[in-house]
Formats: sequence, structure tokens, C-alpha cells
Amino acid sequence: MSYPIVLASAEAAEGPLVLAAVLLSLVVTYLASKIGGEICARINLPSVLGELVFGVLVGVSALHLVMLPADGITGSDSMLLKLLNQSTPMASETLNSVFRSQGEVISVLSELGVIILLFEIGLESQLKELLRVGPQAAVVACVGVAAPFIAGTAGLIAIFHVATVPAIFAGAALTATSIGITARVLAELNRLSSSEGQIIIGAAVLDDVLGIIVLAIVASLAKTGEVELSKVAILIVSAGVFLVGAIVLGRWLSPLLMKLVSEMRTRGQVLITALIFAFLLSYVANVIQLEAILGAFAAGLILAETERQEELIEQIKPIADMLVPIFFITVGARTDVSVLNPFNPANREGLIISAFLIVVAILGKVITGWTVFGKEKLNRLAIGVGMIPRGEVGLVFASVGTASGVLSDALNAAIVVMVILTTFLAPPLLRLVFQNPNEVAAGLPSPVGLAAGGGAELSLLDGQAVEAEPAKKPEEV
Amino acid sequence: MSYPIVLASAEAAEGPLVLAAVLLSLVVTYLASKIGGEICARINLPSVLGELVFGVLVGVSALHLVMLPADGITGSDSMLLKLLNQSTPMASETLNSVFRSQGEVISVLSELGVIILLFEIGLESQLKELLRVGPQAAVVACVGVAAPFIAGTAGLIAIFHVATVPAIFAGAALTATSIGITARVLAELNRLSSSEGQIIIGAAVLDDVLGIIVLAIVASLAKTGEVELSKVAILIVSAGVFLVGAIVLGRWLSPLLMKLVSEMRTRGQVLITALIFAFLLSYVANVIQLEAILGAFAAGLILAETERQEELIEQIKPIADMLVPIFFITVGARTDVSVLNPFNPANREGLIISAFLIVVAILGKVITGWTVFGKEKLNRLAIGVGMIPRGEVGLVFASVGTASGVLSDALNAAIVVMVILTTFLAPPLLRLVFQNPNEVAAGLPSPVGLAAGGGAELSLLDGQAVEAEPAKKPEEV
Repeated sequence: MSYPIVLASAEAAEGPLVLAAVLLSLVVTYLASKIGGEICARINLPSVLGELVFGVLVGVSALHLVMLPADGITGSDSMLLKLLNQSTPMASETLNSVFRSQGEVISVLSELGVIILLFEIGLESQLKELLRVGPQAAVVACVGVAAPFIAGTAGLIAIFHVATVPAIFAGAALTATSIGITARVLAELNRLSSSEGQIIIGAAVLDDVLGIIVLAIVASLAKTGEVELSKVAILIVSAGVFLVGAIVLGRWLSPLLMKLVSEMRTRGQVLITALIFAFLLSYVANVIQLEAILGAFAAGLILAETERQEELIEQIKPIADMLVPIFFITVGARTDVSVLNPFNPANREGLIISAFLIVVAILGKVITGWTVFGKEKLNRLAIGVGMIPRGEVGLVFASVGTASGVLSDALNAAIVVMVILTTFLAPPLLRLVFQNPNEVAAGLPSPVGLAAGGGAELSLLDGQAVEAEPAKKPEEV
Repeated sequence: MSYPIVLASAEAAEGPLVLAAVLLSLVVTYLASKIGGEICARINLPSVLGELVFGVLVGVSALHLVMLPADGITGSDSMLLKLLNQSTPMASETLNSVFRSQGEVISVLSELGVIILLFEIGLESQLKELLRVGPQAAVVACVGVAAPFIAGTAGLIAIFHVATVPAIFAGAALTATSIGITARVLAELNRLSSSEGQIIIGAAVLDDVLGIIVLAIVASLAKTGEVELSKVAILIVSAGVFLVGAIVLGRWLSPLLMKLVSEMRTRGQVLITALIFAFLLSYVANVIQLEAILGAFAAGLILAETERQEELIEQIKPIADMLVPIFFITVGARTDVSVLNPFNPANREGLIISAFLIVVAILGKVITGWTVFGKEKLNRLAIGVGMIPRGEVGLVFASVGTASGVLSDALNAAIVVMVILTTFLAPPLLRLVFQNPNEVAAGLPSPVGLAAGGGAELSLLDGQAVEAEPAKKPEEV
């Protein structure tokens, strides 16, 4: 409710201003996501890349429109708050408080966005298929963590004479995989339910768990100089118990849940029941120090086995359309790309190190495709490329490293540059290695592609379960 | 992302805790809304009543689960934060900060909920029909503001010897109409597009504008002892310019917008374009000191005239299902019903005054139905009853009055009791008077008529614009 002119207490008066700031942020976010997405769709790039780039454009690096509170950023840095201040003049204290509140709201909305995204990905995955490719995904995940970690750490020590602890930290930052970005690109390319897609998703989920463990290890190393084995053990056990427990319990509970739903008479019964389940598992995953998105993914996976799957996919779609772009725009908006400027001498050392890190980051993940065993004909390059984007997970490593004082400015900048480039390169690369000339020409799978049959479903893109051509081998591209 | 164990800075570590608190609040909110809604649906009451009652149950009055920051409420008052503190121990400063942040997020989500609700109501309304009933709605709105205001103020002065300024304030609090609650009940009863429904919606929208003007007048009266006519004039002009301007401009712009949408290739193009439009108008309405929901309603009304109306209604449905319950649960959760306890001697004076206010509040709105001119056969009682709920708008009056020191504790409590009872009584009353026009005309709604309630189809419930069954005559029941 908005009665700003009359509310006496300062705190109560902020409410409508926070709402106004959030509404304006959402308008800018949606405009940026649509303009960026549409441009990329027209030049045959995945639309998520456009969202990331336009996120950078409206964010801290350029237009200062979508600004999230962080060290050194205050309300007066935000162009949106300045605009709001023009129409409703505020004291600078109020300005900062409104800025913090709107930032908090947009942050949570973006986190709800990636939770809904992973819930949707889970809903469209098949537990059976995921378990079938599980061993292959596990190998991909482990190699994808070990290879860049060892090569990165060793290279930094040998070539750049970095001390051991910071080198281990930077090596650890190379292990992450951003499941959100990969999953979204796979969905856009209609490859989510292909064998490659399921291996990538399975490996990315495991990689997320491994990443959390690696981060716990290096963070305690950075803080105390030694590894707190008990904490790491608790983390490993709780991750295992959570993922197995959620799926076993969930499969037993979900038929009861759906029976309950069919008894309900009020509006939105399926959706709300599913959201309660997804948010509850997200909460549990969050509280046991895992990531909320793992809980959402598990919830989606469980509900995908019920007879309501299609109804749920249909209903979650508009919610994902509303919330997911907020996530990608804020990932871009938070990214300070000024470290990429080679004309700034302060950046040069970081850029040189980053060139090395990027090579390791890409090669270390690309080789994982060839570790997949089994007789299947697979697009091995695509599997490796799917693991490339570090996204927000990589940035967490950099921020933890900087906060604990382990990373030098140059090394921190090098990690940030590596994260930016792997994140932004992965979507077009993934499209390239999955390329099908028909699809690319039309921007969408062509009728020929659709008629050809195959495993993948395009449901995330247009809500219809249409089939696409099987992935082509690299040499055919 | 959730890496609480390792983040060094206190502020960064709060992020995952805020997310956890929001997720838990949403789980409780959805559980309360479904349980309350389902119980009411089974005993032939509007489900929104169940949501309000269960909102009270989980809120500040009882279980302290869904708690929103307000004067005197801190993190340690929230059972959810206590639970979170069990799994992740926090310093009390962190606890309060996390509490404030999650409250801010839930508040904004609930405001987005009522914005989406009014957008949806706008989408399901017809501008032509609304303009046709406009003059009738205007009379209903004006009488519905004037009658309770005059009767309330005069009665308080004459019977209870209240001083003039507080009496005017309390009288003003009687003028409000909660469009959200009325609209939701009308939608549930499938009467939104009936003549009565459109008159109620039109009158409630105008009443909202009038309420803002009345509030501005009495608030400046309370603060400075005189009315700042210039501010009031600006408010009236800007409200008029906004509503007329939005609709004229919007009708001219919306075909262009829809042409643009049909050119887009990325996912969610219709929905996101519509949301940009709705949030932008909400923002403008908010900034010019009107209510955001008026902008959302105007946006819905405009987009209802495009060829995408049905597609949009279909897509906005799951979003409304997700966000609207948050609004109704928080309306209940914020309401402190302890003022209703007659065993507390401190409440008695307020309760006696409130009995008078409730009579005026109900009669002052019910008579408006008979001011509707024209030859149509209308359910006049239903129109009047539709204007009864004061909802959150009434509470704003009480909080402004208390904050400015004009209202005594007893008078403030009396207003709060009046708001609670009108809000909670209106849904079942509205259902009752829409049961059977014949009986209603006689002023004797029978329990038999109530039992026949299964007949009305709920268009918002099942997404189909089906006409309600004609009301049954008593002998058919």
C-alpha cells in the first residue's frame, strides 16, 4: 500500500519507496533480459548470453541501474535510486536504507529464480535416466574437479611462482561448474533430456556438491592453515544423506502428496503443493550447508515421477519466465568487468595469469567428455563444453579468497576474469558443438529437425513436448 | 548461493540465512493458505476467509511464525527465526538483521501479490462494461465514502463525546474499501463480470482514490490542524490524469506492444512484456502518491482489450496462485486480534465504540446499493455488501492516526476491531447475498440458499470463463 505522504514514522514511510525501487528494478531487469535475449536469438546465440551481457550493461560495470548492495556500493551509486530520489526526495540515510532493502529483495528474487530454474530442470529430468548415466556423470564430475585443480595449482606454482596456499585457492576456483547457466543453455538448445544433457546435468549437480566440499577445505586452509577434517566429513555425509534421503523419502511421499492434491478444491492446489515441497527441500539443503538449488532439483526430480508432471511443467513455466531472468540479469549486473580492461596497467598481471587460468579452465573440463565410458555414441566434446561455465559459483571462491586475505589483487582479478570468460563463452560454444544447421538457421528447431525424431525434448522453450534431432558428432558440424 | 560456513564478512554471511528464512516463511504461508482455504471451501465459505483466519493463526496474534517487522517486534519474537537459530546459531544482531530482511522480502512479495491480483482482475474486466457502469459506480463510491464518514464522525461526537479531530479521523477510517478482498471473493463466486461485480470493482477503485484523498486531508488536519489544499488538489488532479491518461495512452500503445510481442522469439515474451507494462504503471501510480495496485489494475484493463487477453490470463494464473496467498496470509498475520478480547478490561471502551463503528461501517456501505440508478434489475444488497471490507486500507488509517498522536488507544483499538470484523465478515456475507437474488430482494437469505452454494462456478478457480449457474429458487433447492 502506498501512502508515503502521510506516514509519520520513518520506517513505515520506507515501505512504498522500497516497493517503488523494486518495481523499477524489475522493469529494467525485464527490459534488459528481453532486449539482450532477442538480440542473441537473432544472431544465433543462446538468449541467456544476451541476458548476461545486458545484465553487465545495466549493472555495476556500466549503467548502474540494477545495483546490488556490496562492499563500497551505497544508494547514491544507484541510478534507479537517484531517479526515485528525483520524484520523492529522501534523506541520504533513507536512500541507503531503501537501496539496501530493494537490493535484498532483488537478491532473494534472483535466488528464487535459480531455485525455480533447477526445480523446472528437475521436473523435466528423468530419475531413471539420471541414475543410468550416474556412474558416467560421477567420473565426469570427479575428473572435471581434479584435472583443473591439479593443473591450475601446479601451473601457478611452477610458472608464476605463486605461494602454495593461494595457488591451491585459485586452483580450487577452477573446479566449479555453474549448473544454472549450463542447464538453461541445454534447455534452450533442446538437449536437456538427451544422454549428453543428462550426463552434464548429473555431473554438474555432483560438481556442485564437490565444489562445496572443496570450498570448505580450502577456506579452512586459508583461515587456519590446516584442514578441519571433521567439518569436511560432516559436509560429505550430510550431502550424501540429503540427496539419497530426499529421493527415497520423496518417492515414497509423492504419491500420498498427489492423492492429497486430488482431494483439494481451491485454486492452484497442484502448484502450491509442489512449491511447498520444493521450498522445503531447498530450505533443508540450505540449512545443512548445501545449496538451496540442490534441494529444488531433488524436489523436481521426485515430482517428475508423479502423474502430475506435465501439469506442473505447464504451471511452473510462467513462474520461471518471471523469476529466472532476474537471476541471469543479476549475475551480469554484479560482475565488474573493469578488470578486463588491458589499458589499465594495474590489470595486466591479473590478465596474464588469467590467460593461463582460462586455458586450464577450458581444457580441464573439455577433457572430461573423453572419460565417459560405455558403448553409447555420445557427443563427447559437448559434455566437456557443458561443464565449462563457472558462473556465480566461481565468483564465490574469489570473494571468499579475497575476504580471507589469501588472494593477491592480481590473482583475485585473474579468477574473476576466468569466471567471466568461461561463463560468457560457454553458451555460444555449447551451441556450436551441439550445432544443427537447420536449428541455427531458424533460431528454433526446424520442422525437419522436429520430424527427424530423437531423444531431446523442447518443452522448456515452447511448452510443447516436441522432439528434436539427435545430437550430431563434432565432425559433422 | 549458500556457503555460510566460509564467508568471512558478516554481511555476506547473512545472504543464505535470509534466503533460508524467506523459504521457511513461504512454506508456512503456503501451508496456512491451503489449510485455511480448503477448510473454508468445505464449509461453503470463501477460501479467502480461511486464508485470512489462518494468517491470523500463524501471525503476530498466535503462533508467531509469519512475523513482519513492526514497532516493538524483533527477530527474537519470530518462531521461524528461533528455529533457524537452532540450526544455524546467530548473534542477536545478525538475528535481527536477518529478521528485518526476510520481513522486507515477504512484505514486497505480498505487495507484488496484490499487484498481480489487481492486474489479473483488470485482465478479466471489460473496460467497456466498466465505463458503462461508471456513473453508477461513481455514485456508489461517493455515497459509500460520505455516508459512513458523516454518520461515524457525528455519532462519535454526539454519543461518545469524542473531540472533533479524532472523530473526523475515525470517520475517515470508515470510508475505505479493500478492493483486494472484494475482488478475490467476487472472482471466487464467479461474479466478477456480472453487472454487480463490475459496479463493485469500479466503485472500489474509485473508493481507493477517494480514500487516498480523504487520508491526505485528515492526515494533514491531524498534523498541522489545517488542510493543505494544494496537496489535496495535486492528488486529485494526478489521480484523474493518471487513470484517464493510462487508459487513453495504453489503448493506443497496446496494439504496438502486441505487434512487438509477435516479433519476439524468446521464451515468455507475452508474459514479460505484460509484466513490464503492469510494473511500470504500478511504479508510476506509486510515485505520484497513488496506490501501485491502481496502476496494475489499469494495465490489466488495457491489456484485456488486446487479442492476447486469454493467453495472458492463462499465464498470469500460476503467478497469481504463487503470490496472491502471500498477500492474504500477511494481512492476517499482521493483524493483532488481541484487541478483540473482551476479558481484558483495557479493551472494553474500544469494543463498545467499535460496536458503533461496525454498525456504521456496514450500514454506510450497504445503503449504497440502493443509490444505483438505472432500469437494470440488480442485486442491490450485493453491491452494498461488496463495499464492506476495509482490509489493509482501513488499518493504514488507524496506524497513521496512532502515529500522529490523534487517536486515543481506545479509538485506535475500535478502528482496528471494526476493520477486522468488516474484513472477515464480508466474504461470507457476500457469498450469502449472491446465493439467491429473490431471497436477497426480500432481505431474507435463508440457510437453505447457503447450502446450495455448490452451484456457483469459480472462474478464477479453474481458469475457464464459465457463467455461473443461475441462482436457484428456493423450491428447486
